Amino acid sequence: MESVVQVSGTVISRPPGQKNPKMPTGEIEIKVKTAKLLNSCKKLPFEIKDFMKKTETLRLQYRYLDLRSAQMQYNLRLRSQMVMKMREYLCNLHGFVDVETPTLFKRTPGGAKEFVIPSREPGKFYSLPQSPQQFKQLLMVGGLDRYFQVARCYRDEGSRPDRQPEFTQIDIEMSFVDQTGVQSLIEGLLQYSWPSDKDPLVVPFPSMPFAEALASYGTDKPDTRFGMKIVDISDMFRNTEVGFLQDALSKPQGTVKAICIRKGAKYLKRKDIESIRKFAADHFNEEVLPIFLKTNENWNSPVAKFIMEEQGLGLVKLLETQEEDVVLLTAGEHKKACSLMGKLRLECADLLEARGVVLRDPALFSFLWVVDFPLFLPKEENPQELESAHHPFTAPHPSDIHLLYTEPHKVRSQHYDLVLNGNEIGGGSIRIHNSELQHYVLDTVLKEDVKLLSHLLQALDYGAPPHGGIALGLDRLMCLVTGAPSIRDVIAFPKSFRGHDLMSNAPDSIPPEELKPYHIQVSWPMDAETEKSSSNHPCRSES
Amino acid sequence: MESVVQVSGTVISRPPGQKNPKMPTGEIEIKVKTAKLLNSCKKLPFEIKDFMKKTETLRLQYRYLDLRSAQMQYNLRLRSQMVMKMREYLCNLHGFVDVETPTLFKRTPGGAKEFVIPSREPGKFYSLPQSPQQFKQLLMVGGLDRYFQVARCYRDEGSRPDRQPEFTQIDIEMSFVDQTGVQSLIEGLLQYSWPSDKDPLVVPFPSMPFAEALASYGTDKPDTRFGMKIVDISDMFRNTEVGFLQDALSKPQGTVKAICIRKGAKYLKRKDIESIRKFAADHFNEEVLPIFLKTNENWNSPVAKFIMEEQGLGLVKLLETQEEDVVLLTAGEHKKACSLMGKLRLECADLLEARGVVLRDPALFSFLWVVDFPLFLPKEENPQELESAHHPFTAPHPSDIHLLYTEPHKVRSQHYDLVLNGNEIGGGSIRIHNSELQHYVLDTVLKEDVKLLSHLLQALDYGAPPHGGIALGLDRLMCLVTGAPSIRDVIAFPKSFRGHDLMSNAPDSIPPEELKPYHIQVSWPMDAETEKSSSNHPCRSES
Repeated sequence: MESVVQVSGTVISRPPGQKNPKMPTGEIEIKVKTAKLLNSCKKLPFEIKDFMKKTETLRLQYRYLDLRSAQMQYNLRLRSQMVMKMREYLCNLHGFVDVETPTLFKRTPGGAKEFVIPSREPGKFYSLPQSPQQFKQLLMVGGLDRYFQVARCYRDEGSRPDRQPEFTQIDIEMSFVDQTGVQSLIEGLLQYSWPSDKDPLVVPFPSMPFAEALASYGTDKPDTRFGMKIVDISDMFRNTEVGFLQDALSKPQGTVKAICIRKGAKYLKRKDIESIRKFAADHFNEEVLPIFLKTNENWNSPVAKFIMEEQGLGLVKLLETQEEDVVLLTAGEHKKACSLMGKLRLECADLLEARGVVLRDPALFSFLWVVDFPLFLPKEENPQELESAHHPFTAPHPSDIHLLYTEPHKVRSQHYDLVLNGNEIGGGSIRIHNSELQHYVLDTVLKEDVKLLSHLLQALDYGAPPHGGIALGLDRLMCLVTGAPSIRDVIAFPKSFRGHDLMSNAPDSIPPEELKPYHIQVSWPMDAETEKSSSNHPCRSES
Repeated sequence: MESVVQVSGTVISRPPGQKNPKMPTGEIEIKVKTAKLLNSCKKLPFEIKDFMKKTETLRLQYRYLDLRSAQMQYNLRLRSQMVMKMREYLCNLHGFVDVETPTLFKRTPGGAKEFVIPSREPGKFYSLPQSPQQFKQLLMVGGLDRYFQVARCYRDEGSRPDRQPEFTQIDIEMSFVDQTGVQSLIEGLLQYSWPSDKDPLVVPFPSMPFAEALASYGTDKPDTRFGMKIVDISDMFRNTEVGFLQDALSKPQGTVKAICIRKGAKYLKRKDIESIRKFAADHFNEEVLPIFLKTNENWNSPVAKFIMEEQGLGLVKLLETQEEDVVLLTAGEHKKACSLMGKLRLECADLLEARGVVLRDPALFSFLWVVDFPLFLPKEENPQELESAHHPFTAPHPSDIHLLYTEPHKVRSQHYDLVLNGNEIGGGSIRIHNSELQHYVLDTVLKEDVKLLSHLLQALDYGAPPHGGIALGLDRLMCLVTGAPSIRDVIAFPKSFRGHDLMSNAPDSIPPEELKPYHIQVSWPMDAETEKSSSNHPCRSES
């Protein structure tokens, strides 16, 4: 089993009755003349059959064996083919230039998630960039006009499930382009590179303003494969007697929101509803009220008795409720209430599908542009200050540019996200090409240290063309296209969620003398000092 | 100048007499209706004209302006096109799979030139690999069969001219292949991707054993665009009375070597000959004797009087000397004497070309395979011990495998180098696929710590197919194809020879609090401590 054999002989037809039409070679066999064992295989740690369950730890430890599985072969080969098609589209059909940009770069402002690399100059470090953002803009200044790169990017987020410390993006930038130009390029790109064994993509993709995505789906990446939209029912409850609704509505931005779960009364159990209410209480500190509709006239809810007939009818009308539906209702500040409802919408979809209801067709790829994001957001730790919603090079929306100097928090941006089945698979923007405007945003609005970006500000001064671009997350995209359970299944040698290579045992210790040329030393934390010698293979037991 | 303007109007013919057939748009002009200044350009630090000389420091500091030059545009666009053709050849025509391998890896044995990246685990570091060598072999074990990648590689060699800390290689590996298979694939690849504005390549490329390359050209990367080969004339001088020749020949491996510089007496000056002799003395501690041939019978040399008639005639015959030729003659241990003569050969070619003799046709691309390298070399610091001539995964030559256990220093390898115009542009080998053999080489011959490679040794145990591959240095190849003076001219954002990005000022200082999560601190050398605060832009003055 799994040994390598060299066989020579004559190809003959299989005897009658032994043909297997399901195999590509099912019609023939080889009449062996000579056979030679090229390399034998030891006892395998697991059988290489798709139906054999094995832990991911074991798969990652023996990755070279796991790669032999039909699924991994399919995933990696399809990835290669799709990327090749993308290159043909960009390079051969649309005149893009594939430019490699450095990965040994300098720290960017707020680059706390950037890996550092000590250099041979004491105290001087390179940083591994989170994206080629600055370089691609500089290429536009440099007259390269249409740039793309399948770019390796780095982000140190510590231990996070389904994130990789290094990942790949299809990185694109164009001069003299607007938002529609970038969008239609990407639509064409995906359509052209889409696997032939799937339904062809229909373009253009629909588009939705961020405000609508938040209001109707409670997220900036709506899964539009199914409805169950969030509905604002605040107006119906202005005169309510229900305490917590009264409370919420009396506050600024106070709202009442609802989603309707079709046939929820049939599929959801009491404990499901309880777990939903608990989730809302635990994660959002919010109350959720379930309302069961036995029939359209027959309410069953703790608040039912407080809901006046008029409100009941209004709900039925607005939510288009039918027999056996369940309505979930919450109240609170608009954004928070929407976020909660957005989470519950997905939670309920999972619950319904676990009960056999098909909400999200697995063959359906539902692309969506989300547009008109805010340019800035209040900082979480200090809401008086603003930070970039995406990055500081994003251009403001042309209609809102006058607000930049008076009410910057109201300015919308020319940023756009590409969403697939509820996952953000890309994002980009038209960039600021005016040096003064860029300086104003960095210095006055964001209060960043402009010195770290002086080269970029300077570059904009020398006749930078208007430009914009986008980056697609290749790992995530391939994960969705192949239907893989994790991005680790579309990467040949991924790291575990703790950032370890379980096969080679990276990261590893380095002899102190090899650190000397880099003028660094390890500062051992108090509790690690004693463990130093015994920590030989800390990752082998990782799950 | 260099501002960005949007113009709309009507395309019309240029008036008679104003057409310029040298310009692609030389027949037409635009009758302007509207014009709009999109972005103005400040006073430029240098004019963007190819004829304007500017220092490389200035070019690198304002790289985004330098990229606008016709030469840089040509270089980067041609690079993109050639790589695209290579991908088509490998991926579309030959079924290769483009697989991305990690750059956050672990230290390899003897990996002193690998950049280190601290992780969030105290004392644990990733390393940036010098090549995807291990991964590509593991992919063969994993059944990927035909792998390629345009791979970013890293090597920290401190300050070295014309090297980059990060560089790119076309990385290839195949299962069930032999040396000829890899070579003909690469010949096809280069032929297919070769720029159409150059003469098509003729394949197969010639091949030369390493021993011959050393003996005839004094190097493992012979420039075969011109002759001036090294000739061994030891036999003629067995009975010489010239002291230093006698001395050399009395030692083991002692030889006398000569090269003949055609018309050297016409083109070379006395100070040229003196600088050649000084070079030999300074760098090789060797004597070089020049012999001027006024006519074939008329010798002019410090040793001429000692050269007997017989020897003189022999020289004329062996070297095919003619009037006005100069013969350079040296004596010493074979390898050393060859190396010296190889250097002088190139030195003399430079001198002759500076005087207007065309030795190396700039339109000629002379590819050459160098094969049959030794598998091991004596360590420089301790010649009793052996080290890999290339890397420890290289398979021994099938005819020499029996010597591995008795006289390993005599074993030739299945390594092959691809040389272009005297530059090594690629190298590869058939690999060891037998776990026991690999263990023997690592452990017994090389005395390496096998634990660092236990995953690879283990992988070979599970039915690894026979495999081999190659890597082409893309930067060097593009440099030769475009005729650029430096690899920095075919890289969009190169580092200076001291490893600095002169545009953004990388590497840069990092605030100590950003080093904390990585459990490292800077160990300042004594003399740097005082300079710490003043070292703001140490690289701005770099030339």
